[in-house]
Amino acid sequence: MGESDPGVDLNRVMELHRGGKMVVESTVPLSSREDLSLAYTPGVAKVCEAIAATPALAMDYTWVGHTVAVVTDGSAVLGLGNIGPRAAMPVMEGKAVLFKVFGGVDAVPICLDTQDSDEIVATVMALAPSFGGINLEDIAAPRCFEIERRLDEALDIPVFHDDQHGTAIVVLAALRNTAALLDRKLSELRIVVSGAGAAGSAVTRMLLAGGATDIIVADSQGILHSGRLDLNDEKASLLAVTNPRSVAGSIADALRGADVLIGLSGGTIEEAALAGMAPHGAIFAMANPTPEVHPSIAARYATVVATGRSDFPNQINNVLAFPGVFRGALDARATRITEGMKIAAAEAIASVVAESLTADAIVPSPLDPRVAPAVAAAVAQAARRDGVCRP
Amino acid sequence: MGESDPGVDLNRVMELHRGGKMVVESTVPLSSREDLSLAYTPGVAKVCEAIAATPALAMDYTWVGHTVAVVTDGSAVLGLGNIGPRAAMPVMEGKAVLFKVFGGVDAVPICLDTQDSDEIVATVMALAPSFGGINLEDIAAPRCFEIERRLDEALDIPVFHDDQHGTAIVVLAALRNTAALLDRKLSELRIVVSGAGAAGSAVTRMLLAGGATDIIVADSQGILHSGRLDLNDEKASLLAVTNPRSVAGSIADALRGADVLIGLSGGTIEEAALAGMAPHGAIFAMANPTPEVHPSIAARYATVVATGRSDFPNQINNVLAFPGVFRGALDARATRITEGMKIAAAEAIASVVAESLTADAIVPSPLDPRVAPAVAAAVAQAARRDGVCRP
Repeated sequence: MGESDPGVDLNRVMELHRGGKMVVESTVPLSSREDLSLAYTPGVAKVCEAIAATPALAMDYTWVGHTVAVVTDGSAVLGLGNIGPRAAMPVMEGKAVLFKVFGGVDAVPICLDTQDSDEIVATVMALAPSFGGINLEDIAAPRCFEIERRLDEALDIPVFHDDQHGTAIVVLAALRNTAALLDRKLSELRIVVSGAGAAGSAVTRMLLAGGATDIIVADSQGILHSGRLDLNDEKASLLAVTNPRSVAGSIADALRGADVLIGLSGGTIEEAALAGMAPHGAIFAMANPTPEVHPSIAARYATVVATGRSDFPNQINNVLAFPGVFRGALDARATRITEGMKIAAAEAIASVVAESLTADAIVPSPLDPRVAPAVAAAVAQAARRDGVCRP
Repeated sequence: MGESDPGVDLNRVMELHRGGKMVVESTVPLSSREDLSLAYTPGVAKVCEAIAATPALAMDYTWVGHTVAVVTDGSAVLGLGNIGPRAAMPVMEGKAVLFKVFGGVDAVPICLDTQDSDEIVATVMALAPSFGGINLEDIAAPRCFEIERRLDEALDIPVFHDDQHGTAIVVLAALRNTAALLDRKLSELRIVVSGAGAAGSAVTRMLLAGGATDIIVADSQGILHSGRLDLNDEKASLLAVTNPRSVAGSIADALRGADVLIGLSGGTIEEAALAGMAPHGAIFAMANPTPEVHPSIAARYATVVATGRSDFPNQINNVLAFPGVFRGALDARATRITEGMKIAAAEAIASVVAESLTADAIVPSPLDPRVAPAVAAAVAQAARRDGVCRP
């Protein structure tokens, strides 16, 4: 952060965050002895007995059915890195209020005092009966992949690592609309993903699931190709489904003839490397707060330019996805988030602006109130279609 | 529960609990791009950086400073027993809304999918950075003693097992006012505690700390005395500070000449056993929903009669204690709950009705709005006096 922050006043920020950004409220009256006897003892015992007899009733007769835990270990927070659980709380609280304001989902920030995968998995499994879903957040790669996979397998509620799948959903939405605007097919675009961490990996897999066929992934050491001996499990598995033309070399080599550059690296990309791109393409430079390529430079080489920032057009912001994804999953009583549900979310986001596409509006504004309901409806429908809803 | 419920309508109860009893609300505006840039990225990074540099700021700049986790393993819920975490949620949610309505404390119900002490301790330690305090609830004895002790030692936030200490605080308040009404000293009363579980143990220790000197504890096998070979660690340790006249035998033997009977057992006590009590004493029959002695029978043998029920006078209800205890501890930034803070809470509860004492009003109504602020102020003052506040 720092110098490149788009005009954030430190005093105003600190003042706004004083006392935190959220509270809990009762939705039942508690002003008479009778109120107490219904909401608490002895009445509440009837509800306990009903759930003990039929556990699924917990979703209908407690707040669990509309809650999500926003879980982090504080190891990869924004661009700040490994700042730990206490310093991560302002972001998790922010995420929780976005869940509520945009999706009507009651989210609770849970910042864990451990960065050990086994302990994180054990803790979230122990917590799970308290929540209707688990949103993993800002957990460093490659640990995040294993943690999500183990929790997804073990739990019967949706588990979703937003840094991976939230980003991936919005990028797929943006790229679908970009393809439509450019009158191209997703399957024929040559795509370069710069960054092979949590977001780069998930975006690549989502684009493949959404119809892309030619993706080259690059990390800080260059293109993922079969000559690389330094690939971890996740990168090796990513290579297995990418780079169909077996290109080797640097990001500049990857970009030669490419239609689309998706930056998810946090690094910078030299202008010279962009010069080799095919004309009439797209550059999504999503590093925050400093895009890999400044939008004004990107515009020289691409028809569509997007960033992660609110002060340029085409903001690729996860808030377009996660509130509606969980709202839909909870509404449908989904036990997990399938690939089909994620693709449905991307299509829903894209469709909100499909009738009014311009190069400066390939995705809706993060504040567009039409988005979350559209995403929720599409996700719930996909959950039912995929057969992952509780009976 | 069942037949003896004081007139709770099942349909009304279920309808009230549909969808749960609480929600999360944002306290910051989120309707413009500028709002988003202050409450979330990029502005929020400034708050994260401030806390990373000075971790104590998390109490002031996140919601942690006004939150409590209400943690259970579902092993000893109300009178229902070991009904598990999902069925326990309606009670924990009820507790959370009482925390909010009476103490202004934002409480989050956490129902754990484990009943293993080590796993419970590890889970709560992992969660701890997310909350300003830990309220343990409805965890079976004797496991609850070890769990509370280990967490209290390990964490720098207040840990409080309400079934023990909340009950103990309110009983001490009630007994102080009873002694005042009867013009007796607490130190000269012969007291019998029936029940040696979580509540019985904590009540006994609290009364001793508050000035009582002659307490006999009995469990289902009779009086705790040195001839008993079946005592677990907690009961043996309780015996070491009780039964100064070395009485052996049944509850009837204990009650011979006793001034006060405190029932925390869930069993029943025969009327014949009460006949041996000294005149002008007190009977607190607190089993719920069926008191150990019906109040109309107890009144034949005691001047002051209290129960746990809302439909008789003198309801000994934990809600008189826990909202104010945590409000005061959080206000003072206390790192733990000391014996002094608990005694201060009892004195504050007692003082609210001290000027208007009658045999039918030895404790305030659970709905009395004066109680929680008085308790909070007394607890915060005691925390400062005991030197347990963060610098």
